[in-house]
Amino acid sequence: MPGMGIREQAEEIEMSMAHEPERVLLKNTGHRTLVPFGARKFGEDFVVIAGPCSVEDASSYLETARALRAAGVDGLRGGVFKPRTSPYDFQGLGREGLKILADAREETGLPVVTEIMDPRDVELGCEYADMIQIGSRNMQNFPLLREVAGIQKPVLLKRGMQATLAEWLNAAEYVLAGGNNQVVLCERGIRTFESSTRFSLDLSIVPAARELTHLPLIVDPSHSTGRSSLVEPMCLAAVAAGADGLLIEVHRRPAEALTDRLQQYPLDLFPRLIDRIRRTVALVETFAQDPAEPRLP
Amino acid sequence: MPGMGIREQAEEIEMSMAHEPERVLLKNTGHRTLVPFGARKFGEDFVVIAGPCSVEDASSYLETARALRAAGVDGLRGGVFKPRTSPYDFQGLGREGLKILADAREETGLPVVTEIMDPRDVELGCEYADMIQIGSRNMQNFPLLREVAGIQKPVLLKRGMQATLAEWLNAAEYVLAGGNNQVVLCERGIRTFESSTRFSLDLSIVPAARELTHLPLIVDPSHSTGRSSLVEPMCLAAVAAGADGLLIEVHRRPAEALTDRLQQYPLDLFPRLIDRIRRTVALVETFAQDPAEPRLP
Amino acid sequence: MPGMGIREQAEEIEMSMAHEPERVLLKNTGHRTLVPFGARKFGEDFVVIAGPCSVEDASSYLETARALRAAGVDGLRGGVFKPRTSPYDFQGLGREGLKILADAREETGLPVVTEIMDPRDVELGCEYADMIQIGSRNMQNFPLLREVAGIQKPVLLKRGMQATLAEWLNAAEYVLAGGNNQVVLCERGIRTFESSTRFSLDLSIVPAARELTHLPLIVDPSHSTGRSSLVEPMCLAAVAAGADGLLIEVHRRPAEALTDRLQQYPLDLFPRLIDRIRRTVALVETFAQDPAEPRLP
Amino acid sequence: MPGMGIREQAEEIEMSMAHEPERVLLKNTGHRTLVPFGARKFGEDFVVIAGPCSVEDASSYLETARALRAAGVDGLRGGVFKPRTSPYDFQGLGREGLKILADAREETGLPVVTEIMDPRDVELGCEYADMIQIGSRNMQNFPLLREVAGIQKPVLLKRGMQATLAEWLNAAEYVLAGGNNQVVLCERGIRTFESSTRFSLDLSIVPAARELTHLPLIVDPSHSTGRSSLVEPMCLAAVAAGADGLLIEVHRRPAEALTDRLQQYPLDLFPRLIDRIRRTVALVETFAQDPAEPRLP
Repeated sequence: MPGMGIREQAEEIEMSMAHEPERVLLKNTGHRTLVPFGARKFGEDFVVIAGPCSVEDASSYLETARALRAAGVDGLRGGVFKPRTSPYDFQGLGREGLKILADAREETGLPVVTEIMDPRDVELGCEYADMIQIGSRNMQNFPLLREVAGIQKPVLLKRGMQATLAEWLNAAEYVLAGGNNQVVLCERGIRTFESSTRFSLDLSIVPAARELTHLPLIVDPSHSTGRSSLVEPMCLAAVAAGADGLLIEVHRRPAEALTDRLQQYPLDLFPRLIDRIRRTVALVETFAQDPAEPRLP
Repeated sequence: MPGMGIREQAEEIEMSMAHEPERVLLKNTGHRTLVPFGARKFGEDFVVIAGPCSVEDASSYLETARALRAAGVDGLRGGVFKPRTSPYDFQGLGREGLKILADAREETGLPVVTEIMDPRDVELGCEYADMIQIGSRNMQNFPLLREVAGIQKPVLLKRGMQATLAEWLNAAEYVLAGGNNQVVLCERGIRTFESSTRFSLDLSIVPAARELTHLPLIVDPSHSTGRSSLVEPMCLAAVAAGADGLLIEVHRRPAEALTDRLQQYPLDLFPRLIDRIRRTVALVETFAQDPAEPRLP
Repeated sequence: MPGMGIREQAEEIEMSMAHEPERVLLKNTGHRTLVPFGARKFGEDFVVIAGPCSVEDASSYLETARALRAAGVDGLRGGVFKPRTSPYDFQGLGREGLKILADAREETGLPVVTEIMDPRDVELGCEYADMIQIGSRNMQNFPLLREVAGIQKPVLLKRGMQATLAEWLNAAEYVLAGGNNQVVLCERGIRTFESSTRFSLDLSIVPAARELTHLPLIVDPSHSTGRSSLVEPMCLAAVAAGADGLLIEVHRRPAEALTDRLQQYPLDLFPRLIDRIRRTVALVETFAQDPAEPRLP
Repeated sequence: MPGMGIREQAEEIEMSMAHEPERVLLKNTGHRTLVPFGARKFGEDFVVIAGPCSVEDASSYLETARALRAAGVDGLRGGVFKPRTSPYDFQGLGREGLKILADAREETGLPVVTEIMDPRDVELGCEYADMIQIGSRNMQNFPLLREVAGIQKPVLLKRGMQATLAEWLNAAEYVLAGGNNQVVLCERGIRTFESSTRFSLDLSIVPAARELTHLPLIVDPSHSTGRSSLVEPMCLAAVAAGADGLLIEVHRRPAEALTDRLQQYPLDLFPRLIDRIRRTVALVETFAQDPAEPRLP
């Protein structure tokens, strides 16, 4: 029952892993999995990925990419296949967008991540991108999970917008069990009854997941809040909660964005944001240098 | 619809305030309400309140209170009327517990907060406590809200475990409209489908509420997570998200607590926790000294 | 975890009853509790209660009551203490409304039910009404539950809008354990993400609760749907699901109602509605005359 | 906000359709879409589909199919590609299972429906099955929706387990807009906090959807409740709520089922169930012969 037996439920997840030997792939046994991404490693470095929600055209994407590089991000994001509730909404640039991403990578030297929705597009995505994102709506798209289990690139697995931790870890297990252990989890907000935010960012999942899995976990403050004014506090809170990185939507001119306008963080304010993020990361790292505390229940 | 029209919904809350002139009591018009609590003021100082879930007996409560005072907390908590799902569970010490709270205050000089559930107990609560807590299950107990609207003591209004921001602010409005403007809001986690935590701490409500109201807002990492191992990361995240204080359950011997055992933070580890909280507060305060940023949508 | 271990959870409820001997009060041991209400008995007769959301004035209430009586209802409803999200909304007629209810009872011979929110009003309510309703927001208002445990009148316990069955049965247990075994449960919709209805009527709780408790259970199709166009199909569905009665909001002129306008069923269409309800009840009763089927898991 | 503006939200759906001319495909303009399925038509006949959760082996499937045919069902169901939370659970028989379905169709003359998860399997599914099911987890799998938009067979579109009506209708719109207007909606329960049932069957969505769309809508009482003891009351309630059909999981020996054991309705009790369903359908049809009532708000 909700609100009862939390510990039992966590134990149930652990137990279900215990009697499935393969599940060892997922289980936290003390070491952390490190997933290389350009010059950084998820799980070791704090990784900041930024970029607009959608790749809209080459020149604006490249201009944004250069500015983000100057601000010190570790990677770029940009959607080219857009999952849209209505079939009449902008669906993304597709293959043309992938080429823009590849150009941006070449020019800035930064790795790029993009979402793939169709198992038949995975091979194409791998030609251009450095990391394949599985979006929230596809967290339990099992044919797609099996497809990315067969590639040699890292996978960014977003949490389903109503998925439990157990379901999320099981989805990751599809990828690990299929032979690809380069999985990074991404919390992006869950659907709740609170409507002043688009979703509710579930930051306590960060330390809760850490206790159960060795996989890195980053946080998306943009989709979760749906409002640019909440992005900074949620970035800093995610760092303080122990996240391994951030995935932030940034746009040169938020008011003109083709998708998810209200949540695009303005590019001109981004340098101050990343500075505060880095200072918070530095503080949290000093805590980590203290002698280890006993494990609490 | 969920996930759509967030901004519109925020505007709807603002508008509904606009055509109700009394609502000005609640609306954020630039200044912050300061609520005195012992030597501190909510809204100006970062206020840490700690103590066991329930007052269990005099000697253990006083011993805990002394240790918390030494660790530098700003106030004490302790439940004497316990809202319990089952009538067969421990229901609290009642009046006897109030006396123990008063003794602890006298000995430590720290103010105390305790929950009152019955409108007929409000007067009694005011005799002994410095702040009256309205618990999550009573956020929409309108006779109780009207009763505490008539007192001269600050009120700690916990968010209902499934309440929206609009409902919560309306509940606060009952107290303000009745003549008591010393209200402090407390986020304590909302019910979601995630079951590895007891509730889901909704930290994005902290900056979202700040945009709409002048009332201080603190965070309870104990009931929300239900697990002591998640208390520290959620304390630090709450600070980074802009909370005005924390309400933390601490127990000398968590395994022996009469209520909510798993979420009691061990007293012996508390000094390190509060040190990290204070260092995070200090960092966030340096950000606040930067020139103001433009208000984002 | 949601979606897992349903049977286990039901068993957990049963077990928690088993090791608490008093809980026998609630447990389904084969017989059904019969709760008298005017000329009918909940648990034996199918009981239809109807009336406007709020008592608005004497003449319109009496006119409505006479028409409902003519249509064949078994009892009347009408709110005089209204739980309202905002303190600036209509709060009900209070004691004056109770007198109107008593007049309607005298004139029609029908018993009346009304909601009490404040433990200090329970005695007053018992002077005038035949049944005391505990509203959804007060399902876990424990001082109020304890107060109605001490009265000699039946209690209509609405399900909390986000309460689980276990929490609801525990709330009923507060009343039973306190000495009042005349409790009728009322399903009134739970909060979900579906927004085309006000709440989601959870009809599967009807047979699920039946397996665990001997208490009668009725259904409120008005608050749950929030739309009068959905009231008829949900009335019939509730009957088919095995409900013991219905609580329906009916208004002479829905467009002029002071509260919950959209969900008031028009009085002039009510005779056809109740006719269809009675015909569906008759069909379901023919099923009950078949030889008993084996209990399924 | 939840609980507020229901009518506005329904209007918002209607309006969003209005300024998208293509959306006319979905909109309820008075006529009902009829979708042929074997000897029946969804939208005109009440259609009962039954069968085990998974196709497990040829002989047991054929035996079950013959018994269901004798009991008077209109079509058969059986999963051969199973979406499973864990990669280590039984994943279905795949192509071999499709052949068993085709054999059952040949022997019984009944049409069959089965779920397809991978866009690359749609063509294969169409070779063997009469109707393609899109499961709850794939309601927003847009590449899959686009794939079935291109086929000449009816599509059974299950509601996402947390989808709103607006999202569900938009998903249907992907299929209609792509050229396939043979879409049947299927309510199968939504995730709520109630844990005594697997999901909560949302029956008020039946009449609510009817007001907005011309598509037929059937109900799955098996996945929604997760408990065979609740299947009969929910079947009857679905009929009373105005559903166009039922999708019921039935198994020869529920305790031995490979998947979703607790919700398999026992084959030997099925004749009585379908008899009661048909008698309830007959009653509801008598109501439909009354003169039309005015449309309520």
